Amino acid sequence: MREIAVFSGSAHPELAAEICAQLEVPLRPVRMRRFANDCIEVQLQANCRERDVFLIQPLVAPVQENLVELLLMLDAARGASAARTTVVLPHYAYARSDKKDAPRISIGARLVADLLVAAGASRVLAMTLHSPQVHGFFSVPVDHLHALRELAAYFRRLDLSNSVVVSPDLGNAKEASHFARLLGVPVAAGAKQRFSDDKVTISDVIGDVTGKDVIVLDDEIARGSTVIELLDRLRERDARSIRVACTHGLFSSGALGRIGEQPDVQEIVCTNTVPVPNGERTPKLTVLSIAPALAEAMRRIHNGESVSALFDAS
Amino acid sequence: MREIAVFSGSAHPELAAEICAQLEVPLRPVRMRRFANDCIEVQLQANCRERDVFLIQPLVAPVQENLVELLLMLDAARGASAARTTVVLPHYAYARSDKKDAPRISIGARLVADLLVAAGASRVLAMTLHSPQVHGFFSVPVDHLHALRELAAYFRRLDLSNSVVVSPDLGNAKEASHFARLLGVPVAAGAKQRFSDDKVTISDVIGDVTGKDVIVLDDEIARGSTVIELLDRLRERDARSIRVACTHGLFSSGALGRIGEQPDVQEIVCTNTVPVPNGERTPKLTVLSIAPALAEAMRRIHNGESVSALFDAS
Amino acid sequence: MREIAVFSGSAHPELAAEICAQLEVPLRPVRMRRFANDCIEVQLQANCRERDVFLIQPLVAPVQENLVELLLMLDAARGASAARTTVVLPHYAYARSDKKDAPRISIGARLVADLLVAAGASRVLAMTLHSPQVHGFFSVPVDHLHALRELAAYFRRLDLSNSVVVSPDLGNAKEASHFARLLGVPVAAGAKQRFSDDKVTISDVIGDVTGKDVIVLDDEIARGSTVIELLDRLRERDARSIRVACTHGLFSSGALGRIGEQPDVQEIVCTNTVPVPNGERTPKLTVLSIAPALAEAMRRIHNGESVSALFDAS
Amino acid sequence: MREIAVFSGSAHPELAAEICAQLEVPLRPVRMRRFANDCIEVQLQANCRERDVFLIQPLVAPVQENLVELLLMLDAARGASAARTTVVLPHYAYARSDKKDAPRISIGARLVADLLVAAGASRVLAMTLHSPQVHGFFSVPVDHLHALRELAAYFRRLDLSNSVVVSPDLGNAKEASHFARLLGVPVAAGAKQRFSDDKVTISDVIGDVTGKDVIVLDDEIARGSTVIELLDRLRERDARSIRVACTHGLFSSGALGRIGEQPDVQEIVCTNTVPVPNGERTPKLTVLSIAPALAEAMRRIHNGESVSALFDAS
Amino acid sequence: MREIAVFSGSAHPELAAEICAQLEVPLRPVRMRRFANDCIEVQLQANCRERDVFLIQPLVAPVQENLVELLLMLDAARGASAARTTVVLPHYAYARSDKKDAPRISIGARLVADLLVAAGASRVLAMTLHSPQVHGFFSVPVDHLHALRELAAYFRRLDLSNSVVVSPDLGNAKEASHFARLLGVPVAAGAKQRFSDDKVTISDVIGDVTGKDVIVLDDEIARGSTVIELLDRLRERDARSIRVACTHGLFSSGALGRIGEQPDVQEIVCTNTVPVPNGERTPKLTVLSIAPALAEAMRRIHNGESVSALFDAS
Amino acid sequence: MREIAVFSGSAHPELAAEICAQLEVPLRPVRMRRFANDCIEVQLQANCRERDVFLIQPLVAPVQENLVELLLMLDAARGASAARTTVVLPHYAYARSDKKDAPRISIGARLVADLLVAAGASRVLAMTLHSPQVHGFFSVPVDHLHALRELAAYFRRLDLSNSVVVSPDLGNAKEASHFARLLGVPVAAGAKQRFSDDKVTISDVIGDVTGKDVIVLDDEIARGSTVIELLDRLRERDARSIRVACTHGLFSSGALGRIGEQPDVQEIVCTNTVPVPNGERTPKLTVLSIAPALAEAMRRIHNGESVSALFDAS
Repeated sequence: MREIAVFSGSAHPELAAEICAQLEVPLRPVRMRRFANDCIEVQLQANCRERDVFLIQPLVAPVQENLVELLLMLDAARGASAARTTVVLPHYAYARSDKKDAPRISIGARLVADLLVAAGASRVLAMTLHSPQVHGFFSVPVDHLHALRELAAYFRRLDLSNSVVVSPDLGNAKEASHFARLLGVPVAAGAKQRFSDDKVTISDVIGDVTGKDVIVLDDEIARGSTVIELLDRLRERDARSIRVACTHGLFSSGALGRIGEQPDVQEIVCTNTVPVPNGERTPKLTVLSIAPALAEAMRRIHNGESVSALFDAS
Repeated sequence: MREIAVFSGSAHPELAAEICAQLEVPLRPVRMRRFANDCIEVQLQANCRERDVFLIQPLVAPVQENLVELLLMLDAARGASAARTTVVLPHYAYARSDKKDAPRISIGARLVADLLVAAGASRVLAMTLHSPQVHGFFSVPVDHLHALRELAAYFRRLDLSNSVVVSPDLGNAKEASHFARLLGVPVAAGAKQRFSDDKVTISDVIGDVTGKDVIVLDDEIARGSTVIELLDRLRERDARSIRVACTHGLFSSGALGRIGEQPDVQEIVCTNTVPVPNGERTPKLTVLSIAPALAEAMRRIHNGESVSALFDAS
Repeated sequence: MREIAVFSGSAHPELAAEICAQLEVPLRPVRMRRFANDCIEVQLQANCRERDVFLIQPLVAPVQENLVELLLMLDAARGASAARTTVVLPHYAYARSDKKDAPRISIGARLVADLLVAAGASRVLAMTLHSPQVHGFFSVPVDHLHALRELAAYFRRLDLSNSVVVSPDLGNAKEASHFARLLGVPVAAGAKQRFSDDKVTISDVIGDVTGKDVIVLDDEIARGSTVIELLDRLRERDARSIRVACTHGLFSSGALGRIGEQPDVQEIVCTNTVPVPNGERTPKLTVLSIAPALAEAMRRIHNGESVSALFDAS
Repeated sequence: MREIAVFSGSAHPELAAEICAQLEVPLRPVRMRRFANDCIEVQLQANCRERDVFLIQPLVAPVQENLVELLLMLDAARGASAARTTVVLPHYAYARSDKKDAPRISIGARLVADLLVAAGASRVLAMTLHSPQVHGFFSVPVDHLHALRELAAYFRRLDLSNSVVVSPDLGNAKEASHFARLLGVPVAAGAKQRFSDDKVTISDVIGDVTGKDVIVLDDEIARGSTVIELLDRLRERDARSIRVACTHGLFSSGALGRIGEQPDVQEIVCTNTVPVPNGERTPKLTVLSIAPALAEAMRRIHNGESVSALFDAS
Repeated sequence: MREIAVFSGSAHPELAAEICAQLEVPLRPVRMRRFANDCIEVQLQANCRERDVFLIQPLVAPVQENLVELLLMLDAARGASAARTTVVLPHYAYARSDKKDAPRISIGARLVADLLVAAGASRVLAMTLHSPQVHGFFSVPVDHLHALRELAAYFRRLDLSNSVVVSPDLGNAKEASHFARLLGVPVAAGAKQRFSDDKVTISDVIGDVTGKDVIVLDDEIARGSTVIELLDRLRERDARSIRVACTHGLFSSGALGRIGEQPDVQEIVCTNTVPVPNGERTPKLTVLSIAPALAEAMRRIHNGESVSALFDAS
Repeated sequence: MREIAVFSGSAHPELAAEICAQLEVPLRPVRMRRFANDCIEVQLQANCRERDVFLIQPLVAPVQENLVELLLMLDAARGASAARTTVVLPHYAYARSDKKDAPRISIGARLVADLLVAAGASRVLAMTLHSPQVHGFFSVPVDHLHALRELAAYFRRLDLSNSVVVSPDLGNAKEASHFARLLGVPVAAGAKQRFSDDKVTISDVIGDVTGKDVIVLDDEIARGSTVIELLDRLRERDARSIRVACTHGLFSSGALGRIGEQPDVQEIVCTNTVPVPNGERTPKLTVLSIAPALAEAMRRIHNGESVSALFDAS
């Protein structure tokens, strides 16, 4: 089969290195050059001709920088006659802009999907997209992995006899429900109420949490205000203990510290789809690696083996 | 402005006639011809050249027949030099196939969106899509109306002081929550549990329904088994009264009779986005017309006025 | 070379099985699921990743069902990362809608060609298209086989010294003329006259048929009214004997019985590009198998060998 | 409505001038510049911005020069922000390359249709395409006129009581049959036999011509060898008189002289879709103008009126 | 005609306001929202339906932010059914990445052109592109203005009898030569020599500058190192006086101060295609407004008048 | 790897033969057929199925003939299921039409690039494009070779101690400067002045040529008037000796004779990217072969090796 060539953008080189170590292939160098006029030029510094190229770049902050960099890498790979170019997107920030809930707004998730294809993406390997429909925004094949298996494996070492999984939001309740099934525990969900365009609060928790060991599950935590607010509701209902889990630990604006300092939060668990922000540390944080899962998916993509087997078995 | 020309496929000519009456424009004739080899040929029997063409066709059973007929109408309009062709989709059955929840399956909602555009659709006017993300599957502009306003106006004539809106499913809970806000009442939701590929049951109702006047809200009711099952859960929790509401009343396989014969179901309310199946009648059924809303949206599309104003005000 | 993976739609599984037997490869299972709302979901139940996928589906009645099923299979194969997807179309019903002979009508043959490509077809293997120009409607490579060789081989066992090939229609006369050359006999043709939009009759037979052993050749027989009418003209001109041959034996609306019961028709010969309709049987019918020809073409496509060689030699 | 702007390529400026005179609009100047390296540059010398642009260019010899010139004109109109660009193709030479009758050959009719669209054609106005299927090769709307009405009007002034229309070829027999109906006379056709790749002869005439006043009808006459050969067959069958008619009088390689000098050919009738070759003159030639028909079609296209009315009435 | 609707991105609202004042139309508001995960959402806050939309956004630093914002604005305009969307690009930073001068590098100018079209741009109004060929990178119509007329009008008030225009670079020499003709003075150019990938120096000045009043002309000045180096060469050749002119005054990394403090530089002249960087001021700087030229071009585009007239007359 | 299949158009079969000899593969036959109506049909006479096809055709006079022939060859290769089709363009005449320097003109270089892709080109191998930006006009990968290495190797055998490279034009000065660096000599350039649309003269030579051994370098010489005029300027400045070099020796309108008869021109050097015109000979002409370079590039493309290495090393 054609040789593999893996490149990483600037967003998360540590993850790329870990994936390459798993795959036992070198991480090929990329030269990024920023001109005086702030434009970026990308040079892939290894032969791509007729190669099976993988570009690893989670779309995290600075999102616009990382996105344009990725588009330029795709253009360079196409111009360099790559046989196939797979974008590895451990995190797809624009996936949240997946609907038109106001007139004349952009649907970023669809636009960025189209841009990636316009720039030359042959396929995409994504992780825990914000909604499963985002898959359908891409006109090229997508392999969509979930981190629930990794998270569940971690939580199974606890005593779960009195636990409940709580989704902060009805929108994420289906995934929470799937996670709860993996752990064999019940599920509950926060109900949000929108007071104005900018003001949304969790007015209620639907389902029983009193006296329970709560595992809050969200797909991503950014500023963390939803989680913080959910904690208030859980306290009002006398939850016994609280753990917080998510796939994408963005933790912007000091979220990690703010959640970590809540005395009744015993643990915060996320994966390394995105880098932990500099200076944001708390002893309560556990970061699970999804590099083995991504590496295995890439290996199967390269070899033409089924990827679905990876996430079917639960 | 260019003249308007409205045509209807075979799926729901009554609705098309009602819309045209509202718009005070004639419904133009279409000749459908089926050849001995079962192929269909469509002839639009009025000049389309440089006209603002609207094709009205809900995608209901027989879905494949109605879909191909619509594609042929689009092709005919394009070949006849329509200036713009808007597909009016009061119901989009394939919207439910919006994610890839098993390996190697089709994503019908995206595929059909692409087929409509490939056949010549310039824009789409849709009603209560199964998930808001389906909007993003189209590469042409979509105006997406909701029937919640019409449904809410109808229910507001009741005493709602003891009511609760119940979504049969966490997946639809956000829309139920929006509907509950319109009515000023709380919300609850069924939690489904999947036992096998084909076997899903509602194991729990999250939220308080005991002694309440329940309004079950779903986007569509087809075979009705989810609703029937939800009724069991509501009875177990001693709901005081039950009404069932949905936008798309597909009522296949005798669903209307089966729900109607439940003694504690006081009323079933749907809209006429799809025709009520022949022979399916129950005195408990109320059908609200969405023709005025669709006609008004079409008038605004034709005149270049904002359609979002239509569904913003709540 | 990449492995081959063959799937069949619902239209003609017997032919698909026969082809796979010839190729000595398994026919892979497909799960077709019809939802309560009449939508279809397709799951290809074998790994397609980087495979050379073939989807076998003649477009016969119910055409619209079979067409949409095929489009969903194509979408599933694309989403499952097939390296190449070839549509095997033993019969292409929409090929007859190949021109715009009235204003504002659809050109189904071009539209369906575009839909197949939009859904992901990489190439097409077709059989006896209604007109050779239909080949050009596809923007992907087409291998176009003819069944004249199979039909000629069968007829050569007869005494052809007094035979003439008769095309019912001037439009098909070129193919009849080619067939006559293969058999070494003269050719004649019916001339149609259109009295109104719906009323066309064969007013004349151009060429000599009196006292001849006639072999009527058409590309397909559906309702059979043209053939029945031609028989009248042939009797008026005292043809000695009559045999009827075609590639695609659609035989709708009891056509097979109606032709078979004509006393002077000695034999009806067709191929198995389409299934013989249930309950339609006559001892006069002979069905030739084109599975070997299709299997050989698929083998050559897979191996990158010339397919034209297959139909060049005559 | 937007203003009209008509330009002509180098192929047939006389026809363009005649059309513009009919339309009472000026023919806008085009600057063609040929560089020392044989490349052509086109400048449209009138404002095209938001105009309804028509480019008149029959594809006649030198075909390649005229084609590339037309493509460059399309590119210039697109770059100059034309609102719509209609290609007026009084003759489409490549229409004859409409099928793949040998392996690995080009299908010029489809390729050139795609090139015209790639270069910016919004629509096409064509005249008497070689086969009606060629219409379907274009992915943009096509208005397809026929000259049979003009030809029939001319022949109706003759005594047709003993006439027969003869097609040189079964492939053109349908159109000859349509022409015969317009004149109220019977039809006959030559049957060609292919001896080798290059050697085709008319072996037979199917239908009765003895003692008849023959009107030979073909869509185009190029080298004229088919017609010359048909004349031999007609003489063998003692036709009483012969007239030759066609839409496209290409008359290459001295064809006009060669046919004109046949003593029993009384008249040759064609239209001015293509220029009569220089130096090729015979007193037997009558050229009918199709400028009024093309001008009327262009007027209707510009005004958004039905063009089909033009060729429906017969 | 359809109404005009003008929106501005974040890059240069002052210029947009000035253009709208010239056009006497309101600058419509845009809501930019940045989510916690650093994604941007754009809402155009005025009806776009069937409007003639203009989006003003020079691509200047932060280029990636401004580019993605512009792409989202395009997507929003398309989704909001704009009749036509023109991107007004007073500066196109990526125009410098217009060739592949190393293996496997991105060609940003072509990629970004494709992205703009993929996001929905119907046309582009650009100003002084780095090379004229960049025009051809766009597949939609481009109106390309130059600021040489504005610059020349300004310099004509000086005594030019002893002046020479000097291009820092042979690549820009053609434009300098055109500017020199506008002023009626001779031209000279620096010759660069590349020592290594990163190290380029001006080794020579081709043409006579000794004792001359030099006007240095470049299309843009970013870090200004080329200009600074050219000044050394000019001093070595005893130029009498020096003025520096450019269209795009990017002045990054303190360039304005560094050039301004050179004692023999009498004046620096640029236009307001890009905002003058904060805190970068020198009394030697003169900023000419190109808002009138852009406004006039937009007015002509809206009215369908010729834009070329604007830059033809010199 | 897939087998290679090389075909040549009519433009320069000698070069194709030389390339195939270098590659040690056969040059496959192509049947070109010109019909009576001047249309061309192409048949590739060797199996292309899943092959790595190369089509060699410089776009030289007759450019339009050669271009359409190439487009038809591409169409034939696509229809014949080539795995990949690379256009080998030793000369791309339309590359000079790379900008819009007048209103409403065609940009031939971009149009022809789009046509090649529309007809099925997967990639392009080009030689010394008129401007490096033309590379970006192609939406498929381009390998762009230069002949400067071949030319430099030839000139290095001379005594270059007193030499200077002179570009006739500032537009080509960058390439002349690169060539001068390869030879280790200084550079100079002619400055053109446009008096009217058609009248351009070299008014000046920027840089020192007095007493020098001049090597005039241009990318192509067509009519040669620029070179002839430059010679006058060089004589006025007392150049010691003159040699003329170019990559593409088009030599139209007797250019070769006219330059060759200048007594002070010692030698004319070009490559065989285009055929030397018939009857144009001068003993001063030296033609260097670029077949080895093209063959090596094709070998590397076929094998997936880096082509950039070929032109990096200098």
